[in-house]
Amino acid sequence: MGEFDFIGRLQQRLAEQPFNAGIDVGIGDDAAILSPPPDHRLVVTADTLNAGVHFPHCTAPYDIGYKTLAVNLSDLAAMGAEPWACTLTVGLPSLDPAWMESWLDGFLAAAQLGGITLIGGDTTRAPFATFGVTAMGLLPSDAAAGNGGLRRANALAGDDVWVSGELGGAALALRLGEAAPADLRLRLDRPIPRLALGSALRLVPDIGGCCDVSDGLLADLGHIAMASGVRIELDADRIPMGMDVRSVSDGLMLALTGGDDYELAFTAAASAREQVLAAGEETGVAVTRIGRALGGEPGVHVLDPMGREVPVPPRAGWDHFAATAD
Amino acid sequence: MGEFDFIGRLQQRLAEQPFNAGIDVGIGDDAAILSPPPDHRLVVTADTLNAGVHFPHCTAPYDIGYKTLAVNLSDLAAMGAEPWACTLTVGLPSLDPAWMESWLDGFLAAAQLGGITLIGGDTTRAPFATFGVTAMGLLPSDAAAGNGGLRRANALAGDDVWVSGELGGAALALRLGEAAPADLRLRLDRPIPRLALGSALRLVPDIGGCCDVSDGLLADLGHIAMASGVRIELDADRIPMGMDVRSVSDGLMLALTGGDDYELAFTAAASAREQVLAAGEETGVAVTRIGRALGGEPGVHVLDPMGREVPVPPRAGWDHFAATAD
Repeated sequence: MGEFDFIGRLQQRLAEQPFNAGIDVGIGDDAAILSPPPDHRLVVTADTLNAGVHFPHCTAPYDIGYKTLAVNLSDLAAMGAEPWACTLTVGLPSLDPAWMESWLDGFLAAAQLGGITLIGGDTTRAPFATFGVTAMGLLPSDAAAGNGGLRRANALAGDDVWVSGELGGAALALRLGEAAPADLRLRLDRPIPRLALGSALRLVPDIGGCCDVSDGLLADLGHIAMASGVRIELDADRIPMGMDVRSVSDGLMLALTGGDDYELAFTAAASAREQVLAAGEETGVAVTRIGRALGGEPGVHVLDPMGREVPVPPRAGWDHFAATAD
Repeated sequence: MGEFDFIGRLQQRLAEQPFNAGIDVGIGDDAAILSPPPDHRLVVTADTLNAGVHFPHCTAPYDIGYKTLAVNLSDLAAMGAEPWACTLTVGLPSLDPAWMESWLDGFLAAAQLGGITLIGGDTTRAPFATFGVTAMGLLPSDAAAGNGGLRRANALAGDDVWVSGELGGAALALRLGEAAPADLRLRLDRPIPRLALGSALRLVPDIGGCCDVSDGLLADLGHIAMASGVRIELDADRIPMGMDVRSVSDGLMLALTGGDDYELAFTAAASAREQVLAAGEETGVAVTRIGRALGGEPGVHVLDPMGREVPVPPRAGWDHFAATAD
């Protein structure tokens, strides 16, 4: 199977994908041509998955294909944007038709879920498998937030801090490897981008800062704290975890620092509590109030029920090069 | 040096880059936010460079940075689009500050040359160096071509076939390796995206099909022939080559199939000859008429001055997986 055979097969399969309005020319030229709808802003994000770094080498091709797109959809969700179009770069040591077909099944399943159209990309030979997506979303001008999107920098002292879903499951699945039960494994391999929740939060008056939980809750809330200039305090006993995570001795640390959860962490004024709960209810995603944003030195702190600080690693969360830095 | 140190340094350096209108939020959030200007279409392309595949491991970091962006700008040029914004994904085994600084110098030099703004991306650990760019350009609604861009599918039987610049230099430099003279080496390491020429050609009435020469002239014209349903005949003695390429025994084959030239190959009605020459003159790029598009079986053929077909490899041009396919 050669590069052009693969591109031909890809074009056939892409007949199955959702085809959004405004996409005038998709795959097949030097570039795609799009007509952005009037009165919308464009949201653009890029994320890469590398074999052995972002997924174990033994991961099923379907799951790699799914996750390649899903992690990018999660970034669009964190901005409150609606998926529109994406590019894909594939680097592989060789092109195995059956492997690629299964990979495409997963990729297209995520495309259906998110309602996004693949418009172009690049297939290259590489010493190991690497997949990159740049995803574009649209922000209608209906946003309650004045800036038209959910931004990290919008948290205010006095806001509540919230998170969707449950944390730590993906990190526990990664640790257990082959021994992970199938339903736990899905938390790692098939994260569900919180697109509907993001769109609903965009409309909540007095919504604050928002990001998705990819590097780990503390690291990602740290970005909000730094960008907004607030101190964030979390209540350890409010961090949402499944029974499986809760039952391991360091479950709380997995939930706080494990990452790969792809939930939304956000802040909102206390006056918006009902609307936040309604947004979760509407979109079928649990939302939990886990702490508050305060004035003071920017940072994230975790408190036990007695108000004592829970010690966490000095630089919690995923830094790709931390292991090689000295 | 960690990932977040690198991102911080990148943000400092990006103060030097051109900052285009309509870029509301750049690097630093989950995603960038852009306001596409009214009455413009958006052109989107993605290309990746892998160490050992797209550039020899010994390539200077400056040149890798430059070329990572330049090859994407070349795709925008081939559509007649004006560079606007791009994302960047970097995969590296480790982060060496001096290496990355030099890489950034090259990337930013290409950004200045093309007038494009880096708006986001992703830095990951990878077993080898890999760089991916998704570039977005704008097409004003001034285009002579009814569809608002230079498309591969627009060649008509009866068109002349043209190419810019000279071909084969990059392939010869790659073959010579360390022995390549410095000026020849620049053809490989610092291709100049033909952005001004692409924009000028967009305004030529009766401009036909267009693409950039990345895989090799025959392969790329083959895309035009297939997309437009035309037979393309090239005159071997009209293919533009520098003295260095001309002086090697298989110089013509290098020019026809070597690739990595990043010139524009295009067709235009015979009535447009003066305007095509004027577009080249205005933008300081030589344009050479090298053949014609005809009715008949889609394909590309090369004829010697006696009208006899010059034999070429059955699938000339760069297929990343051809060597591993069987």
